[in-house]
Amino acid sequence: MQLGLIGLGKMGFNMRERLRKAGHEVVGYDRNPEVTDVASLAELAKALDAPRTVWVMVPSGEPTRQTVRELGDLLDAGDLVIDGGNSRFTDDKANATLLHEKSIGYLDCGVSGGVWGLEVGYGLMVGGEHEHVERAMPIFDALRPEGPREEGFAHAGPVGAGHFAKMVHNGIEYGLMQAYAEGFELLEASELVTDVPATIKAWQRGTVVRSWLLDLLVRALDSDPELDDLRGYVEDSGEGRWTVEEAINHSVPAPVISAALFARFASRQEDSPAMRAVAALRNQFGGHAVQKA
Amino acid sequence: MQLGLIGLGKMGFNMRERLRKAGHEVVGYDRNPEVTDVASLAELAKALDAPRTVWVMVPSGEPTRQTVRELGDLLDAGDLVIDGGNSRFTDDKANATLLHEKSIGYLDCGVSGGVWGLEVGYGLMVGGEHEHVERAMPIFDALRPEGPREEGFAHAGPVGAGHFAKMVHNGIEYGLMQAYAEGFELLEASELVTDVPATIKAWQRGTVVRSWLLDLLVRALDSDPELDDLRGYVEDSGEGRWTVEEAINHSVPAPVISAALFARFASRQEDSPAMRAVAALRNQFGGHAVQKA
Amino acid sequence: MQLGLIGLGKMGFNMRERLRKAGHEVVGYDRNPEVTDVASLAELAKALDAPRTVWVMVPSGEPTRQTVRELGDLLDAGDLVIDGGNSRFTDDKANATLLHEKSIGYLDCGVSGGVWGLEVGYGLMVGGEHEHVERAMPIFDALRPEGPREEGFAHAGPVGAGHFAKMVHNGIEYGLMQAYAEGFELLEASELVTDVPATIKAWQRGTVVRSWLLDLLVRALDSDPELDDLRGYVEDSGEGRWTVEEAINHSVPAPVISAALFARFASRQEDSPAMRAVAALRNQFGGHAVQKA
Amino acid sequence: MQLGLIGLGKMGFNMRERLRKAGHEVVGYDRNPEVTDVASLAELAKALDAPRTVWVMVPSGEPTRQTVRELGDLLDAGDLVIDGGNSRFTDDKANATLLHEKSIGYLDCGVSGGVWGLEVGYGLMVGGEHEHVERAMPIFDALRPEGPREEGFAHAGPVGAGHFAKMVHNGIEYGLMQAYAEGFELLEASELVTDVPATIKAWQRGTVVRSWLLDLLVRALDSDPELDDLRGYVEDSGEGRWTVEEAINHSVPAPVISAALFARFASRQEDSPAMRAVAALRNQFGGHAVQKA
Repeated sequence: MQLGLIGLGKMGFNMRERLRKAGHEVVGYDRNPEVTDVASLAELAKALDAPRTVWVMVPSGEPTRQTVRELGDLLDAGDLVIDGGNSRFTDDKANATLLHEKSIGYLDCGVSGGVWGLEVGYGLMVGGEHEHVERAMPIFDALRPEGPREEGFAHAGPVGAGHFAKMVHNGIEYGLMQAYAEGFELLEASELVTDVPATIKAWQRGTVVRSWLLDLLVRALDSDPELDDLRGYVEDSGEGRWTVEEAINHSVPAPVISAALFARFASRQEDSPAMRAVAALRNQFGGHAVQKA
Repeated sequence: MQLGLIGLGKMGFNMRERLRKAGHEVVGYDRNPEVTDVASLAELAKALDAPRTVWVMVPSGEPTRQTVRELGDLLDAGDLVIDGGNSRFTDDKANATLLHEKSIGYLDCGVSGGVWGLEVGYGLMVGGEHEHVERAMPIFDALRPEGPREEGFAHAGPVGAGHFAKMVHNGIEYGLMQAYAEGFELLEASELVTDVPATIKAWQRGTVVRSWLLDLLVRALDSDPELDDLRGYVEDSGEGRWTVEEAINHSVPAPVISAALFARFASRQEDSPAMRAVAALRNQFGGHAVQKA
Repeated sequence: MQLGLIGLGKMGFNMRERLRKAGHEVVGYDRNPEVTDVASLAELAKALDAPRTVWVMVPSGEPTRQTVRELGDLLDAGDLVIDGGNSRFTDDKANATLLHEKSIGYLDCGVSGGVWGLEVGYGLMVGGEHEHVERAMPIFDALRPEGPREEGFAHAGPVGAGHFAKMVHNGIEYGLMQAYAEGFELLEASELVTDVPATIKAWQRGTVVRSWLLDLLVRALDSDPELDDLRGYVEDSGEGRWTVEEAINHSVPAPVISAALFARFASRQEDSPAMRAVAALRNQFGGHAVQKA
Repeated sequence: MQLGLIGLGKMGFNMRERLRKAGHEVVGYDRNPEVTDVASLAELAKALDAPRTVWVMVPSGEPTRQTVRELGDLLDAGDLVIDGGNSRFTDDKANATLLHEKSIGYLDCGVSGGVWGLEVGYGLMVGGEHEHVERAMPIFDALRPEGPREEGFAHAGPVGAGHFAKMVHNGIEYGLMQAYAEGFELLEASELVTDVPATIKAWQRGTVVRSWLLDLLVRALDSDPELDDLRGYVEDSGEGRWTVEEAINHSVPAPVISAALFARFASRQEDSPAMRAVAALRNQFGGHAVQKA
């Protein structure tokens, strides 16, 4: 089928390629003239036959909200907008309402798979109305991995459910990575395990901890066996924070996901104000030595 | 090759079968007369040709230590004992030393894979001397999964390294399970995600969180979609505790693995003494209501 | 000086008494006719001389916001409203703006001390403009404990700073209580410490952990030595959640405060969905027994 | 009464002074000739009248165990040894048994109060037999703070209970300090609270979080308002580790105390191997940028 695709960055560029390989007609728009197919959103709207389906794949937050607003002006009743970016689920209802006023449909779609999706396919979690989901299914089927549809695609619920599911997916991802990371550090610290990369590589088959993330850790260790080419500095792009906030909103204990999030915060600090306070207290009551700044 | 195998429980029984299918000659001993091949450890020793290789697969702690002591009396110089149970790595040095005095070799082998190992093969992490490892390699090759040896088997280091690696593996496993579990609970709590099992099932392909544990969670949800046939009561068999203790011994932060361990402890409490103390304090300073026991 | 005081519950009732003891004239309003001095907010406004100072001490959230809106209608330019409740600091800017449009001043005041404040005085943290703070200082001085003003009162910053400071205070309080609670549980679990209440009582003088909360724990243990008259069920009234959310907003690691918050969530669960998932997983891979619901 | 006191460091030196002020006769021994009263342990033994009471106040672990062994050789039946250092409670039974063979009594005494004990007195938690406790009571009474005995002294249980109680006390201390520290960091991070030291100072009276540790934090902030003269580098001296290990041994959840311990470990790392692993993983799946070492 025909699809408008807005945002041709790391994710969108690959998705266009995967969709075209599957035989779909994709008109892509990006501000970067080197990758775009059309010169503007307006041209994109013109290039598509009604009823149009337009996939938004731009940074979450204001860029996505702004794009949806512009599409509200450019598209017509009966068209369908899919937000495939990492938007916070709380944005979806507003987006859907805005478009609904113009009788434009809206789906939110969480997309997992990163740079590997081009080849392997993307895991998809969708929120919205059944008829919109059905209409876009050829696109979903092309993007998702080979195999049974239900193992790489879910209609999770109404508008917002797709991004909510993706948010939880990413929260879990934080916890999984931190678990492997703590294990890696302990193996590194051990005087007994003399071949850490070989040990982790051996977990790839048969063990309880085998996973795609483990395969990626093995891949990283293959080229940098002690991971000392890089710094222990880890960004976060929001979903972990949102997951903990939703856990709090729902009174759900989330000790592991929050610990993983806080470890990232700490990784980015030159020095910890909290630990300065602890050092100061120990010095006050016990005369324990402190390190000067 | 020929192998003596002591302990034919959930793990050992399956391992005997997998080894026999691979063409090895296994003489198994278990206290349970219905599964044992020989009537006693002494008979097992007699039934094997020198130099013997004997695999111990009994409960960790005193049962394993006791078995090793008995083997020290029954075996001869040049024989080899492999402890494949979930022993704490700190037991290995003592076991090896005891056997070394009688010129009997010793390997410790962490075995992962659970009840699926019969079919899929077991992930193996071994500690000990190179020549002992080489000698037992046909057994390791039969037990480990198909595929490149190094993806399901590692010689992790000297005696103790195998069980240390397995301990860390299990610590990671605690963290992974808790991460999925927190995500599951948050999805369940959400009013947006209306089909939780379908959402989790869709993570199996293409996503960052895909793993064998996730496949098992899907399997559990297939038969019990809200997991409400069972109670949130979780035992632990030691490796998680040991991992946290070793993290402490090596000054390695382990917030995620310890949080997962503590969640298990809490799951087994009828009522939390700590939270009684918090409730009492809130009542004291703020007059907040308490629930009577 | 003269003060209008809205809300005569557990906190407000005591504050009226403390203020009157200090010689101030307090006109109190509460929906409860047994404790109120006037029949309505309108009457309260009439009963006060211009320029009026009105202290709001009603439940946080909508009740406080509603009261502020009503005061905006009833009060006059030059009057001053102080929100002394446990409002989220994010409410303060809106309240101040609304009143500012009518030239009514606004202060937010975090109040700590609970039911003991009547006798001991209340710790106060205030946000707002210097001139407003100065104007209400006689009230603050009457409410705060004896001793140097700066040890029980702070002008923490502009509007919102008082409630932000109080929120952090309460977040710390969560962590402190949980620390004592974990220690209490471990002492209870120990077979060595045979007199737990005496041990904790002995921490009241000279030790590093002495505190008012410890004194209250001793008090609770005096009447219930094992705290088994009550259940380990702990409510939370919002400030702990907000503290963790603000920690996340500011990328501040808060492992202790969040752990204390999550322990409360868990204390209120009949059964943990997360731990059901962990139990299910262990059953799936290892055939470990589960407890049926 | 007469006391032998071994170890005149930061703690022992002050204790000798406090005891002498209280009218006791103290014979002190230290390897440092500038502070010692006698030249050797043997001389100390000779200088005391039978039955002797000797207080050991040397570093925990081997130094204390070695001192106890030497005292076993130098003292006589009927004498009494008190270990007032920060020994792990697991050492006490061995010490008591060794001395018991020579009919020498043994008490373990946890001592809290740090450098302030000279002036304020020390909180004391004692393990051992009733008659030994009674015998040393004049010493305990001189060391403990003024006020009711039971508010600064406890006979917690049999041998080991004193150090167990002190260990838990210190574990709690870790949690308390971390709670204040997280709050301090969040206040510092806030753009609303413009006077952080004043805000914390105002918590000293009337609030729920008032404590001696808070007083010390105020003291530290008085001389260094942002605590930026020092680094956030925090040592630990063992008790926090032991507390978490005992929590694990007793299946007691200790999320707060362990989080405080792990924060200290992390504070001493130049770079975190765990976070290198997380950074590597993010780079692998998402192409996210890493910082080079």
